[in-house]
Formats: sequence, structure tokens, C-alpha cells
Amino acid sequence: MLEYKPIIHLSMESSQFVLASRPTGLPSANNFRIEKTILNKLQDNEVLLKSWYISVDPYMRGRMNDVKSYAASFEVNKPIIGGIVAKVIESKSKMINAGDTVFGMLPWATYFIEKAETLRKVDIQKVPPGYYLGVLGMPGITAYIGMMEIGKPKRGDTVVVSGAAGAVGIVAGQIAKLEGAKVIGIAGSDDKCRLLKGQFGYDEAINYKTSKSIRKELAALCPDGVDVYFDNVGGEITEAVASNLDFHARIALCGQISQYNNTKPYIGYSILPHLLTRSVMLQGFIVSNYSDRFGEAISQLTQWVTEGKLKYTETITEGFDKLPEAFLGLFNGSNQGKMMVKV
Amino acid sequence: MLEYKPIIHLSMESSQFVLASRPTGLPSANNFRIEKTILNKLQDNEVLLKSWYISVDPYMRGRMNDVKSYAASFEVNKPIIGGIVAKVIESKSKMINAGDTVFGMLPWATYFIEKAETLRKVDIQKVPPGYYLGVLGMPGITAYIGMMEIGKPKRGDTVVVSGAAGAVGIVAGQIAKLEGAKVIGIAGSDDKCRLLKGQFGYDEAINYKTSKSIRKELAALCPDGVDVYFDNVGGEITEAVASNLDFHARIALCGQISQYNNTKPYIGYSILPHLLTRSVMLQGFIVSNYSDRFGEAISQLTQWVTEGKLKYTETITEGFDKLPEAFLGLFNGSNQGKMMVKV
Repeated sequence: MLEYKPIIHLSMESSQFVLASRPTGLPSANNFRIEKTILNKLQDNEVLLKSWYISVDPYMRGRMNDVKSYAASFEVNKPIIGGIVAKVIESKSKMINAGDTVFGMLPWATYFIEKAETLRKVDIQKVPPGYYLGVLGMPGITAYIGMMEIGKPKRGDTVVVSGAAGAVGIVAGQIAKLEGAKVIGIAGSDDKCRLLKGQFGYDEAINYKTSKSIRKELAALCPDGVDVYFDNVGGEITEAVASNLDFHARIALCGQISQYNNTKPYIGYSILPHLLTRSVMLQGFIVSNYSDRFGEAISQLTQWVTEGKLKYTETITEGFDKLPEAFLGLFNGSNQGKMMVKV
Repeated sequence: MLEYKPIIHLSMESSQFVLASRPTGLPSANNFRIEKTILNKLQDNEVLLKSWYISVDPYMRGRMNDVKSYAASFEVNKPIIGGIVAKVIESKSKMINAGDTVFGMLPWATYFIEKAETLRKVDIQKVPPGYYLGVLGMPGITAYIGMMEIGKPKRGDTVVVSGAAGAVGIVAGQIAKLEGAKVIGIAGSDDKCRLLKGQFGYDEAINYKTSKSIRKELAALCPDGVDVYFDNVGGEITEAVASNLDFHARIALCGQISQYNNTKPYIGYSILPHLLTRSVMLQGFIVSNYSDRFGEAISQLTQWVTEGKLKYTETITEGFDKLPEAFLGLFNGSNQGKMMVKV
């Protein structure tokens, strides 16, 4: 891994992906462009990093648009930025040493130089490095805070998670189980449904692609109604859940992946009459609003993972040049658990 | 008023409205039937009441359906129940005396006998009796709790109220003004808009029936976005407001009057992507969930009304037999402020 030699560094070449153009609808490989760059000489407090695991996340689709949202837009002809676990090749920082593994919000590049203060050292002795992009990273924190702060499942509650086999959904459902709830997942294949029930403790799972009526299936599985809905997808699935909500239900509106590539606003059945008559609380949920709770979340998630109470899975594509392909795979459900690229 | 003589009481006749049939879509007069009844002799702890002001409220439409909701369904061939201010004609209670004015949830009848413990004495020296059906009754309490508990407007916030000229909306907007917000009302006629701005302190008002684009009008009036939306109507108006919401906006989902007579679920633009990307909190709001705060609400509303800080208006139809007509008028917006029937 540590094959860096100073003589190479002086004219060290890196590859990076930039946003070539803003997508309309579903992105394609043409919206990305790979470029060569030459790295500068390392300055004080900087480290030279080699990308190891690069995260692809659904929310990044929103950053490819030029619209006001919670995360700033990516700029055209500038690198894509995302969560990366990297190896430190050389360091001029007292905080971080060569050989350390770090996490940061970093450019999609093979090598890059970064100020040490923007990085967090991670321990890869007990968990795989990719976990810091998944169950112990933003998706896990999202699941934890969304479920504990908004969903608040109580023992005996019925919890429904959409996008249940995704990076966030797998964790959200297991947390609800740890809190004593009955948990039903909605996912896009029989394989995913088997995985949810067989490995991740979901009580029931519905394949939305083959279900004749998600609404009726849910009604049969939740005779007392749904108390907590953790929504990662939106659209028709959310309409089907809404008509099964119990009084005082809580919705953690975490994602709307079915809508991210829309070129026109989605038209569907309004869920508002259900939310009104059943006194439902819905919270649009962006995890970065809760940064004061990240420490607690990471601590609890780490404990559950090391105790074996929280399981996880990853879909890892090999090769830096596969980043666009892995990212696009998020929108046809080709991942189980956390999707990432190993460089 | 106190024309009751015991000799009449022995065979005293009353008129009452029963639900003749459950409406499909917009109700008609045929869904109501007037009946004569003979009152029993007064028992201990009972009072004989004469209806004075009878409330008609949009939420009663939901009770005419045979579906699970927050309020029990009316039964076919049984009296309609609603808020009534009545005069006490005779009393066998130590709590309430003949000549008192009381409020209760009571059958739509000219005369009736009721247990005293279900009634609340009201003071008609300082405010008109109908106020106990409006600004000092359920609509006022709804506006107060919905605005203070869910909307939570801060000084400088922009608040939008739909159904702004209705029994709840008039109060909701004034409370937001008292809290220091800029307040914009949406209502269904130029007269109502003039009333909102001229008499009830709204900063701006939009006539949704003549607006070419509610969304664009709002965008112009709310350059920094909408912080609080108090929704009484749902449908297209709510979609227009949703696209103008600011980050961390709050929606008090209080009513969906545009949807109450639907025979099919409403289909429209999903507001969920806005709620997600702007971290919006929406609470489906049924005032009866907050009964522990009614005392505080009534106390504050009474103070504001007696100090002249909170103004109100009523649309009063005369004649017991006009009840169905007054009720149906709610759905074509024929009321300004609280709609009621004076018997």
C-alpha cells in the first residue's frame, strides 16, 4: 500500500473525476469526465492521501443540479466531492502520520493533498475500512438519528422502512428491532427481501416490484397500522404506506430516491388527508442538521457493531474508473447495503 | 327568552336534525332530515336547554362518512352533534341555573335535556354568545394551539394561512401578527382579502380564485421563503405554498377543506421533495389531542379579545331549519369568519 517514493511525488500525477455537465433526468457516464492532475509539493499541516474506498450516495444526485438545496451544488468542470476513506502516504502534520487511515469529504481523485484538520483518523483493526462510509459513516448516522430522533419507535410499534436494503435502510430497520419494534422492509428484489429477513432481522419484507398492491400487503402485515415510517424513496411506495398509518405516526422523510431523476414534478395521490386525520408528524430530515449528535450516534453504532448486534453489508466495485457506473447503479437498485468503489 | 312554563314541558316538543343518509361527495339537503321529538321529564342533575347559536364546522363533513378518523362517525337516523350555545330554561342541577348560558357538544335540536356535567357556563356580558363557537371556542383554540405549538412563528418570520377568512384562519393570522410575524392570507374573494388586510391586520392577501399563479404571487411576496404554513385547505393551494417554503419551515396541517367532498383521492404534485430538501416539519393537527392546553388557550384568547387585540367576525344565518344550508355554505366559501345558525 505504501509504495510512495519522494522522487515520484515531485511530479506526481493523480486522476480525478469532474462534473462534465449537469444531468437532465437520469445521469449518464457523459456527465463525468476523468482528468489528469499534477500534485503540488506538500506544505506544513498537509498530508498526501491515496484514495482507498470512495462512497457513492443518492443525495449526490441533488448536488449535480444547480438548485437551492441543503448541500451546495457541485460546480461544472470541478471535482465531484464525496465521502472517502484514504491512506496517508506522507504527512507534514503532527496530528496524522503516514500509514494512518482517514475519512474525509474529499474530491473523487486517486491521490490528493489535504489539510490534516479536515480529516478524521479511523481505526480499521476491528471493522472493515468501508464501514466508515456506511454503518459507521453518514448512512449509519442518518439511520440512527432519523430513527431515534424522529421515528422514536416504542416496544410493540410497527415500523416500515422503504429502501430497506440500502445503506441507510439496513441500519434503520435493525435499530428499530433493537428498540423492540416489529419491522417491515420494502425493497426491490426477492434477494433483497430474503437478505432483510434472513440476515438483518426484519420481520417481514415486501418486494415492491412484484407486489400486486403494496397498500394491501401492508394492511395485512400491519393490522394495527404503521407507527413509524422511515422513508428513503417517496412516490407510490410512500402513498401506499401513508394509507396504512396509525394515529400519531411519525415519518422520518429521509430520502426520495424515486424522484431524484425526475425532469417534471411527480404527480400522485396526496398523502396529506391521511396525515391530517391521523395526527401524523412528518419531519424532512437532513442529517447535517443534527451534527451535535454525531458523536453519540457513532459511539452507539460502534458499540452495536462490535457487539455483533448490528450487521452490515456492502456492494464494492473495484477500480477508480468505475465511479460513475457505481453511482448510476444506485438508481436501478443494483446495490445491497452500502455502495462504494475500491480504488 | 325564558318563556318556558312547566305545564308545557310535560309534553314539550322539540325539533331535531338527524343524518338521513351518508353523503357521497358534496352533501345536499337530502342528507339531513328534520324530526319532531317529545322531551322527557327533567331528572336530577339535568337541565332543559333551548338552542341559541348552533355551530357548523368543516370537520363535521368527515363525521358524516363511515370511516375511521379522529372523531367518531355520526350514525344514520341519529341526531347530528355539534357545538351549541344554549339557554338554560329549567334546571335540576346545583351547578347551573335557569337563565344561564352554556356551551356544549349537543344534538342539533331546538330543545333538549342534558346532564349538567357535560356543559360549560359561558359569560355573555363582555362578548357575543357566538364567540364561544368561534374565537373563544374550538376554532379559536385550534388557531392558538396550531400556531403556538406547531407553527411557532418568531419575530420576522413569514407566515402563510390558507382558508384565511374562515373561523380558524382569521384568528391564526392575527396570532402570528401578535407574535411579530409578517402574515399573508389566502382566501376566495376580493372582499375576503380586503377584510383580512383592512380589519384583521394581515400584511398581504391573495385571492386564489383570481390569481394567475399562487406560487408566483407568494414568491414575490415572500422573497425569503415561508417559515410557517397554517393549512386549512390542502390541494393546489398547499402545493403552491410548499414550493415557497424556507429551510426549517413548520406546517400546521389543520384542515383540508378542498378535499372533504372528494369521491376519489386527490391527485396532485407531491410536496414531499420540498419537505425533504428544506427540512420541513409537518404536523397533522387535531385540536382534541391538546386538551391539556385548552385552559391556557381560552385564557389567552379571552384576554386578547377583551383588550381589543384580537378581532373577529361571524356569518350568522337565522332559523333552525337553515342548518343544512349553512353547513353546505362552508364548502362554497359563503362565510366570513365563524359560520353559525341563530335559532
